[in-house]
Amino acid sequence: MITLYGFDTVNTLKVLILLEEIGTAYKLEPINIRTGEQHSAAFRAINPNGKVPVIVDQDDFQLTESGAILIHLADRFDCGLASKGTARDRALEWLTYQLSTQGPIFGQIEYWAHLAEPKQPNILAHFQKIGQKVLGQMDTRLSQTRYFAGEDFTIADIAHYAWMTRLRVLGLSLSDAPHITRWMDDLSQRPAIQRAVAVEKAIQG
Amino acid sequence: MITLYGFDTVNTLKVLILLEEIGTAYKLEPINIRTGEQHSAAFRAINPNGKVPVIVDQDDFQLTESGAILIHLADRFDCGLASKGTARDRALEWLTYQLSTQGPIFGQIEYWAHLAEPKQPNILAHFQKIGQKVLGQMDTRLSQTRYFAGEDFTIADIAHYAWMTRLRVLGLSLSDAPHITRWMDDLSQRPAIQRAVAVEKAIQG
Repeated sequence: MITLYGFDTVNTLKVLILLEEIGTAYKLEPINIRTGEQHSAAFRAINPNGKVPVIVDQDDFQLTESGAILIHLADRFDCGLASKGTARDRALEWLTYQLSTQGPIFGQIEYWAHLAEPKQPNILAHFQKIGQKVLGQMDTRLSQTRYFAGEDFTIADIAHYAWMTRLRVLGLSLSDAPHITRWMDDLSQRPAIQRAVAVEKAIQG
Repeated sequence: MITLYGFDTVNTLKVLILLEEIGTAYKLEPINIRTGEQHSAAFRAINPNGKVPVIVDQDDFQLTESGAILIHLADRFDCGLASKGTARDRALEWLTYQLSTQGPIFGQIEYWAHLAEPKQPNILAHFQKIGQKVLGQMDTRLSQTRYFAGEDFTIADIAHYAWMTRLRVLGLSLSDAPHITRWMDDLSQRPAIQRAVAVEKAIQG
């Protein structure tokens, strides 16, 4: 059985959604990142970089980094990622866009909006402006295809969706993004996503 | 033959290194991002997001995002990425670390050091402090294994190395990172990397 070390974080939610889509049994081990549990010796033995999520799969195989975990689980259970060809390339293209652009920029917005002391409104505005540009690129893509990779729901959708659950916290607007809105309505009706969101909300240290 | 649309950028260099490691014929099409050529209608037809690198492979298959391009080419030519198993997972783990952490943080440092107007020394210092922490995580990993994924050189090394060619511009120090230094000495002696770095330096719009 797969063990997921995580907390109520965007990157943990990505893995929860895929595990629920797969429908395999898993065990969730909360690592309370607000009390610093990720820096404990016990957790450092699992991930020296002190970050969640981490999975431990069969034969005690341990893997960090949400993007790599999504690819690993998708391939192992044949869920959310075509095994080859253009469909696979497109899913990995939009997964890596999420990992390298949407995630880091949204992460900066969260930091400057809620964590930085003292507040620096001009720096927050700088990152929110880039964030709106990212939403514009996502909306353009979703104006062409039903899901990020094409006609099929993939791990690229899962990765993008996790951060989109934080949109209000980031102060970003979807008023100019009708295609993202349509896509979010679609995804939010998936039972696996509903279960994963509920599991994430219930996580306590 | 593969066509690479790129310029003298870190993400273009990643693809150049892998193409030189593979040893396949390719055509380089410079897109001058300093004169805004990436926003031209002709290039937007190739990548609506207006970014390099982009490859066009056989059957006019077009692919963006350096991370996805590395995985695509590595799998297609069986170079720099194991086809399955733990070796593959580890390479994708450290590739996605580069895409989601090293690259975005180093990109922020470059922006606040060289592009932001007016200069904001405290914001630059904030990102440089995180950048040194990233180097610490890279060094810890390279204290355990010869390359990022283990005993074999992979696309995870290529992805990290591209940004490391900009270390001086970023104002980061390797004085506490002996394992990164050893790894860079190793990589800089690879003929394919030497060729790719020379090709990138010679790119003109």
